[in-house]
Amino acid sequence: MSTAERAEGAAWDEVTPDAARRLLVAAVEAFAERGYHATTTRDIAGRAGMSPAALYIHYKTKEELLHRISAIGHGKALRILESAADGPGTASERLAEAVRTFVVWHAGRHMTARVVQYELDALGAEHRAEIIQLRRKCDAAVRRILGDGVQSGEFDVPDVSGTTLAVLSLCIDVARWFNVAGRRTPDEVGELYADLVLRMVARNQQ
Amino acid sequence: MSTAERAEGAAWDEVTPDAARRLLVAAVEAFAERGYHATTTRDIAGRAGMSPAALYIHYKTKEELLHRISAIGHGKALRILESAADGPGTASERLAEAVRTFVVWHAGRHMTARVVQYELDALGAEHRAEIIQLRRKCDAAVRRILGDGVQSGEFDVPDVSGTTLAVLSLCIDVARWFNVAGRRTPDEVGELYADLVLRMVARNQQ
Repeated sequence: MSTAERAEGAAWDEVTPDAARRLLVAAVEAFAERGYHATTTRDIAGRAGMSPAALYIHYKTKEELLHRISAIGHGKALRILESAADGPGTASERLAEAVRTFVVWHAGRHMTARVVQYELDALGAEHRAEIIQLRRKCDAAVRRILGDGVQSGEFDVPDVSGTTLAVLSLCIDVARWFNVAGRRTPDEVGELYADLVLRMVARNQQ
Repeated sequence: MSTAERAEGAAWDEVTPDAARRLLVAAVEAFAERGYHATTTRDIAGRAGMSPAALYIHYKTKEELLHRISAIGHGKALRILESAADGPGTASERLAEAVRTFVVWHAGRHMTARVVQYELDALGAEHRAEIIQLRRKCDAAVRRILGDGVQSGEFDVPDVSGTTLAVLSLCIDVARWFNVAGRRTPDEVGELYADLVLRMVARNQQ
């Protein structure tokens, strides 16, 4: 089983009961295909083989579905990045691990990642503020690894916050272009990107 | 006048008459805000201060508007990349110029770039094939610079097609996160990214 398949399987396990999970998966598909604003709760219920009334038992509004997807998606991203940041190994090893696992998530779960990344503006103000907090923590995890590498002398990073942004941005955009029918597996993209990012930050440049 | 302001000003000059240009700008705003599928031609006409009947004089369908936006946007991207690839200077200088100008375009015209990049699937089959040809030419321009740098000994790039993809992807994602109220100007992001990309490909790594 590849890392990507593991990521697929474990994606929505935390959502119970089964009907609530099916609705969430249907919402991800509908939002990814047509966009949040073009999707109705009726579309989502229909896709899950349920009635609109059955949907309202689990989710009061369409925005609540988006918030749930976004919170779970960002929570997963944060766990990936923090577990790499706080893991064993040198700063280079931890940065490579962060990039590899973050890329594999964005490739393997690219529909979820697109919804999570592109529909941020559709969240209500309170939910948006909550998600932005999670995003700040994601930034902080990467910044921590870069700072450790600068301190240990492994890295040479003149602009730590700009480079943090670039590293995360590079990984996130995988969700836009990744194609399951394409030439590269999620694991292969993860390896390539870990190598490119290490080059970005390595000491001893020309 | 900054590079970004020049990019803004020259954006839709090629579209005439004035009413057709106003409709195109209104469509970019509406698609960027709510997504292609959630936008009607009535919304677009209203935003441009025109009647739906007046819209149909210039564009037969909503898809025709998206195609026009996408063709102009991709044409502009291609001119930027080819003019850097075919310009004077070493491979390093040309790669830096390609990244700087491509980033400035994605930051300065981030609404257009989002529509162009995220609504590709909404194009009809024939229009989509035409745009994919333009995208292949964009790839080829960057690949050409990387190949030149490998040949001259400036660059060490084990995976030229993967690195081409990563360089373009890094620049394109600027359209997602760039915020005109943020800390960095388009020109500053362009400088930072040119430096990071040169590090990705430079010889003489650790």
